[in-house]
Amino acid sequence: MDVIKEFFKRDRFSNLVGIELLEVKQGYACAKLKIEPHHLNGFRVVQGGVLFTLADVVCAAASNSEGELAVSISASIHYIKSGREGTTLFAEGKRTCANTKLSSYDIVISNDNDEKLASFQGLVYHKKTTLEEVIRLHPD
Amino acid sequence: MDVIKEFFKRDRFSNLVGIELLEVKQGYACAKLKIEPHHLNGFRVVQGGVLFTLADVVCAAASNSEGELAVSISASIHYIKSGREGTTLFAEGKRTCANTKLSSYDIVISNDNDEKLASFQGLVYHKKTTLEEVIRLHPD
Amino acid sequence: MDVIKEFFKRDRFSNLVGIELLEVKQGYACAKLKIEPHHLNGFRVVQGGVLFTLADVVCAAASNSEGELAVSISASIHYIKSGREGTTLFAEGKRTCANTKLSSYDIVISNDNDEKLASFQGLVYHKKTTLEEVIRLHPD
Amino acid sequence: MDVIKEFFKRDRFSNLVGIELLEVKQGYACAKLKIEPHHLNGFRVVQGGVLFTLADVVCAAASNSEGELAVSISASIHYIKSGREGTTLFAEGKRTCANTKLSSYDIVISNDNDEKLASFQGLVYHKKTTLEEVIRLHPD
Repeated sequence: MDVIKEFFKRDRFSNLVGIELLEVKQGYACAKLKIEPHHLNGFRVVQGGVLFTLADVVCAAASNSEGELAVSISASIHYIKSGREGTTLFAEGKRTCANTKLSSYDIVISNDNDEKLASFQGLVYHKKTTLEEVIRLHPD
Repeated sequence: MDVIKEFFKRDRFSNLVGIELLEVKQGYACAKLKIEPHHLNGFRVVQGGVLFTLADVVCAAASNSEGELAVSISASIHYIKSGREGTTLFAEGKRTCANTKLSSYDIVISNDNDEKLASFQGLVYHKKTTLEEVIRLHPD
Repeated sequence: MDVIKEFFKRDRFSNLVGIELLEVKQGYACAKLKIEPHHLNGFRVVQGGVLFTLADVVCAAASNSEGELAVSISASIHYIKSGREGTTLFAEGKRTCANTKLSSYDIVISNDNDEKLASFQGLVYHKKTTLEEVIRLHPD
Repeated sequence: MDVIKEFFKRDRFSNLVGIELLEVKQGYACAKLKIEPHHLNGFRVVQGGVLFTLADVVCAAASNSEGELAVSISASIHYIKSGREGTTLFAEGKRTCANTKLSSYDIVISNDNDEKLASFQGLVYHKKTTLEEVIRLHPD
């Protein structure tokens, strides 16, 4: 899984947001994010794009977990409870269905009080390239 | 759970399609459908609307499982493998997130060879009415 | 467009539901459905699977409109108003985005009072097969 | 529309990402984003969360355009083409369906070459609070 972790260190937007990838296993990943003031929207709760990005990083890690490039083609999210400043959010998810080209992932976002905030479903397309080739072609 | 089962007997479209509700527990349901020629599309695989309706019935049963009316407001589906004539499909799912008004459900459709065909995510709105009242107001 | 119309005559589930394809142009389609008692759910409004199937047929027609096989891989729907018995529903939609393999469609369902009932978004994968080949390989 | 623009100046995550709201009218909005290195993922294309957040800001602006608080409850996105560093992306969208509590929006993301990159569909819940009250209750 080392290539995955190296790969996600290269994800600049995920770094800007502050997402920390905690674990990656075959078809599974989890990540966390401590909520800071810059994650809030005009209502002073966590902006929807923050929740989406947190889940999307988990979907990307789980779908690339075999070391072959997978790209997201569709995703949906349901927002059930608001995220608050000062809490830490966790996203965890796994592959539910797959064929040779497509796979689908269910991801749930929780807070540090174990309340479920949002549910995310992602669909990815598996390319015939390894992550190592991508890193070699696009060095930093 | 008897009111739920009575309620789903009243679902005429689900009956037209031939869906059989197998089990309903709090926040959980499963159903099955034997694939007949009238479930196929022009490519001779199960029409997407059949898969969607099968998952939707499970979502409706799970979300109405406490006997209070819940109505679907949003749903998404990922199609991974085709369903075939002569097989039996199963949909099973549960609540993943809830607040006092909204709840979200993850449902997976499998065939009788235990292959996962599709993944569905549903969002419902909980109304302040019981299923018994709905049945009383709209008798057959 | 004749091959498309022939193709949709072969869609047995769409025929069971009673959907009538009205028009197909490049990347565009519309269809209608007269609501009968067998389209209703246990609340006596149009079942979600009926609305989904109506929009899905439009998505399939629009995405197959060039005569090359396109298969649905993801779809989502938002339900805004209920459909009622005795009304006629219309679904109309068009391609919004495309690359050589994937394309996306926005479809809106209205009733005969021109009220918008639901919004659907579909994603399809374009295969390297023509509809004529599919019909030849799977004759009735 | 001045209260909307003030409201979006308060959206700290949108500011962090660098999104500029260009126009808001009743049920309509558009926004732009110049793609910088910090918007990229490990494949050196625009991260999915960036595209989602850009569309989500347009959905939020369009749905709050009457000055009454609307909160996002569900969203889905289809990714068709990649966004590239150095380009400027635009998101534009409008309300397609509404009842007194819920409304749905279709949003398309394009680049400065007028290529369509992604299609987004958002569902919001309308609360009985004005944006002015929200700003008054949560001053900066």
